[in-house]
Amino acid sequence: MSKLFGSIEAGGTKFVCAVGNEAFMILESTTFPTEEPVKTLQQAVDFFKQFGSSLVSIAIGSFGPIDIDEASETYGLVTTTPKPHWANFDLIGFLKAQLDLPMYFTTDVNSSAYGEQLLEPSLKSLVYFTIGTGIGAGAIQDGEFIGGISHAEMGHMFVKRHPDDLDFAGVCPYHGDCLEGVAAGPSLEARTGIRGENIELESNVWDIQAYYIAQAAVSTTLTLRPEKIIFGGGVMAQEHMMARVRKQFAELLNDYVTVPELTDYLQVPSIANNASATVGNFALAKRVYEK
Amino acid sequence: MSKLFGSIEAGGTKFVCAVGNEAFMILESTTFPTEEPVKTLQQAVDFFKQFGSSLVSIAIGSFGPIDIDEASETYGLVTTTPKPHWANFDLIGFLKAQLDLPMYFTTDVNSSAYGEQLLEPSLKSLVYFTIGTGIGAGAIQDGEFIGGISHAEMGHMFVKRHPDDLDFAGVCPYHGDCLEGVAAGPSLEARTGIRGENIELESNVWDIQAYYIAQAAVSTTLTLRPEKIIFGGGVMAQEHMMARVRKQFAELLNDYVTVPELTDYLQVPSIANNASATVGNFALAKRVYEK
Repeated sequence: MSKLFGSIEAGGTKFVCAVGNEAFMILESTTFPTEEPVKTLQQAVDFFKQFGSSLVSIAIGSFGPIDIDEASETYGLVTTTPKPHWANFDLIGFLKAQLDLPMYFTTDVNSSAYGEQLLEPSLKSLVYFTIGTGIGAGAIQDGEFIGGISHAEMGHMFVKRHPDDLDFAGVCPYHGDCLEGVAAGPSLEARTGIRGENIELESNVWDIQAYYIAQAAVSTTLTLRPEKIIFGGGVMAQEHMMARVRKQFAELLNDYVTVPELTDYLQVPSIANNASATVGNFALAKRVYEK
Repeated sequence: MSKLFGSIEAGGTKFVCAVGNEAFMILESTTFPTEEPVKTLQQAVDFFKQFGSSLVSIAIGSFGPIDIDEASETYGLVTTTPKPHWANFDLIGFLKAQLDLPMYFTTDVNSSAYGEQLLEPSLKSLVYFTIGTGIGAGAIQDGEFIGGISHAEMGHMFVKRHPDDLDFAGVCPYHGDCLEGVAAGPSLEARTGIRGENIELESNVWDIQAYYIAQAAVSTTLTLRPEKIIFGGGVMAQEHMMARVRKQFAELLNDYVTVPELTDYLQVPSIANNASATVGNFALAKRVYEK
């Protein structure tokens, strides 16, 4: 019987659980809201139990910060999240108690980066940003994730404030006006009183947001020199945003270093239906199974 | 006869050439100002020719940006530097024409990072910043330099402006108020009209500068999660600066992720006399010789 790999994309608002075959095709999947941890994770466990011994391993790409250091006493925990009930919850411990399988634990954005790289194996380095309710990024260099003590948390880097936005304090509970505080989805509503999807395309707020996202792309370019930066998440799924970000990126970088054509370099995900993390998780589950 | 390794630290204001033995001890060295490229590099060539066939390889850590991609047509060139005469000069080509030796070409800050890691081999990841006439950084993860298409250029990342510094346009010819534009040595004189070394310790300008350097440390922490960040260069050689940077770093990061004790985490170089790059170059020269 052929082997199945499991994926959990543990997002801040919803969980996506899936099983895939050795070609990393999604065979079955389920989505449910992220509620309190025991209830939510039990739904995941029940989903995977259906597949019995065919399921050989699971990779979990989670919102964070999380502890991914297997040598750490707090390995497998969600750590300092402001999300109610989840701070210091032992996510991997809960799963392992009911599913005796090899598991790979990383961030949702690392999973997505891994998935995207499968589609472009010629790329030696790439960065995957998600710009949605929060902002996060995962990066790969030569097949390995960027990260020393722990995983990247690039969503909270600092940015130069837009001249028309100096009075906005930002919405990050930790840093106020870090990147996430001024450019994630909730910042749009905090500034305008209107939910992002209802703001007119002519509004200056889109350029303000693009200015911050472009800075993140510039700082990432200068720090990691990746071959490609991919933007996933709800905000960047709007076609006009990528054009705005590319324009501001070019102005901000000012040709200081060479990058590929911007229409190739700054891109939306290649994997359709927001499935980058799921496909990446299948590959990571295979990797942990074979190790 | 024992082998000798060569080092060129090609800085924007001076060149340091040295030869070392297999224990990476400096046996002889010379320093001269960085003038126009042919004159400067000929001095380097003449220095190394003294050592005849004992010298088996050379590593060059250079100011930049430079092209370090051996597959590129412009490999070995200094590229977009604003430094007169050096833009698009074929540094490695000039050296190779007179010294038929294996050469390793990287940034001065990568060389320094490599040197510092030799002294702390237990560290799997570290970042080395230089804060002087310019700002640059090199990073190592698992023994390899961080960098995809090319080397890092972290000195030009963007930063949130200090509320008391909003009117200062910054001095970076490419980006105005990027990190280098507001926190490298020349920004001090541009703001105050007084050379940095003559500014009183009580001046608010030090806290403004520390605020920007601390942001670079926070963004680097969140992007790379290194085990240590080392600050070299003239500005950080002043004892009061490291204390100011640590204090502002703690306030800005706000315990969002866990880092080592700040007195260990944010540090000055372990190798004395600004020799981190030279020692790193000896090790890189050995690596290219043995390959």
